[in-house]
Amino acid sequence: MGIEDPRATFIEGTYYVMYTAYSSYGPRIALAKTDDFHTFERIALVSEPGNKDGVLFPEKIDGLYVRLDRPIGLGVGSIWISYSKDLSNWGHSKVLISPRKGYWDSYRVGASAPPIKTEWGWLEIYHGVQMTSAGPVYRVGTALLDLEDPSRVIGRCKVPLLSPREDYERIGDVPNVVFACGAIVEPNGEVKMYYGAADTCLCVATAKLEDIIRYTLNEVNA
Amino acid sequence: MGIEDPRATFIEGTYYVMYTAYSSYGPRIALAKTDDFHTFERIALVSEPGNKDGVLFPEKIDGLYVRLDRPIGLGVGSIWISYSKDLSNWGHSKVLISPRKGYWDSYRVGASAPPIKTEWGWLEIYHGVQMTSAGPVYRVGTALLDLEDPSRVIGRCKVPLLSPREDYERIGDVPNVVFACGAIVEPNGEVKMYYGAADTCLCVATAKLEDIIRYTLNEVNA
Amino acid sequence: MGIEDPRATFIEGTYYVMYTAYSSYGPRIALAKTDDFHTFERIALVSEPGNKDGVLFPEKIDGLYVRLDRPIGLGVGSIWISYSKDLSNWGHSKVLISPRKGYWDSYRVGASAPPIKTEWGWLEIYHGVQMTSAGPVYRVGTALLDLEDPSRVIGRCKVPLLSPREDYERIGDVPNVVFACGAIVEPNGEVKMYYGAADTCLCVATAKLEDIIRYTLNEVNA
Amino acid sequence: MGIEDPRATFIEGTYYVMYTAYSSYGPRIALAKTDDFHTFERIALVSEPGNKDGVLFPEKIDGLYVRLDRPIGLGVGSIWISYSKDLSNWGHSKVLISPRKGYWDSYRVGASAPPIKTEWGWLEIYHGVQMTSAGPVYRVGTALLDLEDPSRVIGRCKVPLLSPREDYERIGDVPNVVFACGAIVEPNGEVKMYYGAADTCLCVATAKLEDIIRYTLNEVNA
Amino acid sequence: MGIEDPRATFIEGTYYVMYTAYSSYGPRIALAKTDDFHTFERIALVSEPGNKDGVLFPEKIDGLYVRLDRPIGLGVGSIWISYSKDLSNWGHSKVLISPRKGYWDSYRVGASAPPIKTEWGWLEIYHGVQMTSAGPVYRVGTALLDLEDPSRVIGRCKVPLLSPREDYERIGDVPNVVFACGAIVEPNGEVKMYYGAADTCLCVATAKLEDIIRYTLNEVNA
Amino acid sequence: MGIEDPRATFIEGTYYVMYTAYSSYGPRIALAKTDDFHTFERIALVSEPGNKDGVLFPEKIDGLYVRLDRPIGLGVGSIWISYSKDLSNWGHSKVLISPRKGYWDSYRVGASAPPIKTEWGWLEIYHGVQMTSAGPVYRVGTALLDLEDPSRVIGRCKVPLLSPREDYERIGDVPNVVFACGAIVEPNGEVKMYYGAADTCLCVATAKLEDIIRYTLNEVNA
Repeated sequence: MGIEDPRATFIEGTYYVMYTAYSSYGPRIALAKTDDFHTFERIALVSEPGNKDGVLFPEKIDGLYVRLDRPIGLGVGSIWISYSKDLSNWGHSKVLISPRKGYWDSYRVGASAPPIKTEWGWLEIYHGVQMTSAGPVYRVGTALLDLEDPSRVIGRCKVPLLSPREDYERIGDVPNVVFACGAIVEPNGEVKMYYGAADTCLCVATAKLEDIIRYTLNEVNA
Repeated sequence: MGIEDPRATFIEGTYYVMYTAYSSYGPRIALAKTDDFHTFERIALVSEPGNKDGVLFPEKIDGLYVRLDRPIGLGVGSIWISYSKDLSNWGHSKVLISPRKGYWDSYRVGASAPPIKTEWGWLEIYHGVQMTSAGPVYRVGTALLDLEDPSRVIGRCKVPLLSPREDYERIGDVPNVVFACGAIVEPNGEVKMYYGAADTCLCVATAKLEDIIRYTLNEVNA
Repeated sequence: MGIEDPRATFIEGTYYVMYTAYSSYGPRIALAKTDDFHTFERIALVSEPGNKDGVLFPEKIDGLYVRLDRPIGLGVGSIWISYSKDLSNWGHSKVLISPRKGYWDSYRVGASAPPIKTEWGWLEIYHGVQMTSAGPVYRVGTALLDLEDPSRVIGRCKVPLLSPREDYERIGDVPNVVFACGAIVEPNGEVKMYYGAADTCLCVATAKLEDIIRYTLNEVNA
Repeated sequence: MGIEDPRATFIEGTYYVMYTAYSSYGPRIALAKTDDFHTFERIALVSEPGNKDGVLFPEKIDGLYVRLDRPIGLGVGSIWISYSKDLSNWGHSKVLISPRKGYWDSYRVGASAPPIKTEWGWLEIYHGVQMTSAGPVYRVGTALLDLEDPSRVIGRCKVPLLSPREDYERIGDVPNVVFACGAIVEPNGEVKMYYGAADTCLCVATAKLEDIIRYTLNEVNA
Repeated sequence: MGIEDPRATFIEGTYYVMYTAYSSYGPRIALAKTDDFHTFERIALVSEPGNKDGVLFPEKIDGLYVRLDRPIGLGVGSIWISYSKDLSNWGHSKVLISPRKGYWDSYRVGASAPPIKTEWGWLEIYHGVQMTSAGPVYRVGTALLDLEDPSRVIGRCKVPLLSPREDYERIGDVPNVVFACGAIVEPNGEVKMYYGAADTCLCVATAKLEDIIRYTLNEVNA
Repeated sequence: MGIEDPRATFIEGTYYVMYTAYSSYGPRIALAKTDDFHTFERIALVSEPGNKDGVLFPEKIDGLYVRLDRPIGLGVGSIWISYSKDLSNWGHSKVLISPRKGYWDSYRVGASAPPIKTEWGWLEIYHGVQMTSAGPVYRVGTALLDLEDPSRVIGRCKVPLLSPREDYERIGDVPNVVFACGAIVEPNGEVKMYYGAADTCLCVATAKLEDIIRYTLNEVNA
């Protein structure tokens, strides 16, 4: 009944788009591919209902495709990692990043951008939610995953990378939301993160990759 | 944090046990195997959290292992079917049997016994739940699936095969529950279904296979 | 999507049946009539959605048809009284009987049998619900309404007339339920009340009308 | 315990005001009349509890008064239509406008302004609610009803007529609310719609009647 | 608005009764005293609202009165211990016994009988609740507290002392409940525990004190 | 797991800080003292779990310390008063200020600033919450308590003293919140109230004490 939050990953010459497909049984993760972003070919529905926020790694690791997602389970929203030989059948799922009590991501977390390969590890830009009496606050943070074993978390920022502060992030159909679905690294090391604000407008934020890494490792003050 | 509802399937000389494994993230489907029911070897956790009632078909179909399960999704409990080449990675999930408004299985359904191969099709003994103001009533019913394409439902009983009627099924820690995890067909065509009653005692019920089939196809009156 | 709890009232040679009609918008009160209980003619849906337990008085009062029902409103289940010139258009609704804290009818009340005309007033046999941690207990009680102004309550029993005590009232699909939809007075003054027990079997209970009246006026000990 | 959302309709020389009256049993629809908006005469409570957003048509149709309202029923908020000979007794209720999945009015709808007679049909300005994780967004839209049979919907806008966009509509005691209770058509065809914004201030918006009609029939792009 | 679950403790020639007093703000713990169980003198309300299951120790410890109770807090029902110089002002509250996942007392616990002094420690007979899809199962178990520092738990039974098994414990207004408010030790070492069954009848169960102690220390098999 | 909403009271040369201490059993009221606001000495946890918003009076009354707090009880948030001889053991709790239907403090109330002694009585600056479909609105109001018997309320403002009106009070992590934890009276009679706005910034508001008193007694128009 609808499509939500597509995330594009470039693998060996093709763009793969992992997105949330809504059915009457709940959200599922779906996969399509495209060469031109005009015509898309559906590959498969790659989860049973009750899953969102799927992102695909940009290359195989140990011969396997790897993805992150957020199964609903008991309602605790954690980021999980799964593996596949063929992009259709998935398995060996493990929990990767869970909410942290007392932090900006205490209520729920989910993958935002497809992991970015860096010399320090896979940089995952994710969203964290804090619940308040007036509703959720969505913020953006980062985690660093081991290059060879991405189920191992090397670092995770204690303070969010981006919080709703500007009027266009605080005021809109859903106040207090910054939510990214993609980011790219320019040749000069500048990261451009595209994000929606207050479910009402589109924005881009920039930072140096090295600064983000140090931030993720909590080596700089917020 | 616990194991629940194991279902044993005999495939090519080995017993595979599909069961519900409880974690702090919710229930997952797990698979183990055994030759003697004394020592078990864990194969894999074969779903992300939020899934229960997994049963394995007793043979490959079109070269693939097949299972039924019940992803939580939006809370609507339906039986789904999934496929695998290797018992660890699963995909191509489709909804198979959903609750029916106004019937004995209006609130939730889940697979109970591993499918039984018959000349008329795969016989699936499943449980259906009707919700009342005093809690759920768990009953046992049946569906018949196409032998070559088990994602196709041939028949489904309109009236339950077994309902809580005896005192030991109506009175106990969880009243009004009959719940099966397995059934066998004797050489003479008698089906023996083993089930728990009121979450308090263990029972066995018998019926002729042919009678169950006609019942499933609603060819006999309840 | 279904019909529930029909109550028959005999007015000037015709049987009127007021019942609950379930739609996808919730329950509504509907009215039909019959001469032989074989063929029924629908008269009208006589409430908007969110109403149950309608019963019709057996004669006009002050030239108006009168009914009792139970609008859902805020979820507090009270018995209301309404009036009509033509059985289709209704108005002048007022609350009549509400739940009483600390009594057997503390959680919800609803009309059960159509009011019975007696020399002491209109006798309304109604159901009261007490909520427990294991679900509701449905009991039967009585109220006496003024003959000329049935919106005036003359008496109301403090202790229920009938409570689930027998095994067939305590054990069944919905334990601890006695629920009546009709009662008749025999020429010798004996009241026969027909009721369902545990949503599983049908029963009849008897009492002398005079005893019920004194019970309703709390003139006898329970 | 309070009065809410009065809507005034001018019929044959008198102003009728249909409003929501709060009782401890929930909201009910009430009717009063006035000639000068200084003194009001109560006519009747015209619904049982569990109803809101009543508006009266400005003339009788087929000899009957007609109103729209929003019975709570199962919690699904739809607009219903009812009829009356005398303004006190109402009946023949039917559902008229329901929420639409995937649209701006997916969660709940209710009548806002009394219907306006136009040559194309009865123009009903209604409110639609979309639920978000941060609470509801209230918007204003339109439907066109058949002049002779107002239970027949001729058109319904796919895109809202007015959404919270200005700061005074987005910021206030209840953010993201535009909610109208009345509109008038000037002799020159200009519609003036009076509405509350963010439950904090009062506003007026204007549009040409013909533009609104074409908008309602989805003949113009949003 | 009512009194519930009184527990009598004999201290220096007077019977003190600690009970739950229901107000419109929720349950509170109250204290009264009596010499003859005919006339009672209220001493004080000894908790703010949101507390139940208060029991008083039969003697002062280190010069202080001691009680157990069950503050509601976040809804997790644990047994707490508090101290007082004068029976009216209380303080130094600490948690004592909490629910245990996977056990018979996984959902909620509360003190049942006032602690009994034994040579092995204070024997506390408490109730534990396990939640099922059909409602709670109330069982009786025991803990042993240090004689000199009753905030120290020496032992706690893994298996309940008494579970609903008899028909009169399983069938009644609240099925599957055994709930004690008092127990006495006869000179011959026999413990008589008085308890309610299914909120419908009163019962007594007996056991040897030494057996209960060994059971509490899990030295015997269930 | 955290500290919230500290309130400082100066008694006989020492600053006492009453604050909310979060445990896994829920919030409790805790008391510490300090001379320099650098080092703090914990005195005691002075409530069981399920209590917040404790404030201490700045002097003993009738030889007793006095505090206000907000026990959770049934979820209705009222301000209660309690007494103590020694700051550790508390008792004689009574309800003091409850929510008022139809007012700005209809949903919940809690003490904000420690009571201020004035010639007209103890001035309590408290917060009141009104619930809307988009979340709560937190406002500041006042009550006047009898100097000799502070459990007697002399006056209570009908209209809030301070409501979210400025952008920095309406926009932020929790919109529409003004929440004070302290206020001082300058020698010239000016009250300085320090408060948080939208859970995002800190503010101070000023008013003349005499104006606040007249406002509390509803002697001035809002």
